[in-house]
Amino acid sequence: MDAFSPSLENLIDSLATLPAIGRKSAQRLAFHILKMDEKSLEKFISSINNARQLIHRCPVCCNLTDGEICSVCSSGERDRSLICVVENPKDVVAFEKTHEYNGLYHVLHGVISPMNDINPEDICIKELIGRLAGDEVKEVILATNPTVEGEATALFISKLIKPVGVTVSRLAYGVPVGAELEYTDEFTLVRAMEGRRTL
Amino acid sequence: MDAFSPSLENLIDSLATLPAIGRKSAQRLAFHILKMDEKSLEKFISSINNARQLIHRCPVCCNLTDGEICSVCSSGERDRSLICVVENPKDVVAFEKTHEYNGLYHVLHGVISPMNDINPEDICIKELIGRLAGDEVKEVILATNPTVEGEATALFISKLIKPVGVTVSRLAYGVPVGAELEYTDEFTLVRAMEGRRTL
Repeated sequence: MDAFSPSLENLIDSLATLPAIGRKSAQRLAFHILKMDEKSLEKFISSINNARQLIHRCPVCCNLTDGEICSVCSSGERDRSLICVVENPKDVVAFEKTHEYNGLYHVLHGVISPMNDINPEDICIKELIGRLAGDEVKEVILATNPTVEGEATALFISKLIKPVGVTVSRLAYGVPVGAELEYTDEFTLVRAMEGRRTL
Repeated sequence: MDAFSPSLENLIDSLATLPAIGRKSAQRLAFHILKMDEKSLEKFISSINNARQLIHRCPVCCNLTDGEICSVCSSGERDRSLICVVENPKDVVAFEKTHEYNGLYHVLHGVISPMNDINPEDICIKELIGRLAGDEVKEVILATNPTVEGEATALFISKLIKPVGVTVSRLAYGVPVGAELEYTDEFTLVRAMEGRRTL
């Protein structure tokens, strides 16, 4: 017997497949799960199942939402002439926390990255172009991460949008190069938003 | 909108209740869970439910097991005159990995700790004393962690067992004081087992 009982080993293996969870952490989580009372466990598992059933992409901006259309797209108080394009839903929350941006968003769900076999058609660029068909949108702010892939994706999108006649801007380099947007503080994000420049 | 959609927030909150999982880690886990394919998720949840249904304490040694009696207690190849007393199931696995110890175990599921309101009757000491009723057991090795609580628990148990006429020994101080048994390497554990001294 070099290991725990089969079902405990199985649970530990399962938990160790989660990102950034090693075997020791998985063991700790497993023992915690075994000790949870019935009600907490039920709540825990139903939170997983609920999230899986309810959450889908907003048909307008591709952000994750429970409702048919997300709360930003369905809001009457948003500036509909402005779209801020971000890589993922966490970036939307980061911008919302600044309480300074009042436009709409568009979530790409990734960046173009030939190294990882992610091409333009694998992220939500098509949906973004579709939103520019009317006259409503005046400016698209490209707020992808200031990394190589983020820059390349911004450049790619700006080349697609320019012929449409919409202003395209990029976040100012207030954001430290190489960093992740979701970890940037509110003040830096506000500076970056204010200093955006036309491409 | 300062946050993710309600069911996503709910999932993140749920995950953040797990030990050593902060809000950022919980977010990462939540997005991973949303991206898992249906089959992996089913396997993940059934590993939790299975573990919760199957795992119970062995009626003999109190270690966690799927079967009626654990694999060590039911094995015919074990030295039944020797019981190694440990704090938790992880310590059993640590000793089993040395491949040098061939006796039985007894899992206390904790240590006496008045500061945390854990008294002798809250851990499996009663069950250990019950196992010493016959003539089979010749020696009890107290392998609690070399911490203040571990030492105190070992002393408490040795005082209970001595009148029964069974030899009581303590792990040698090969184990660095203040450390956790489950993180100790196999060789140190073997040294500690060899150098055990009669109390």
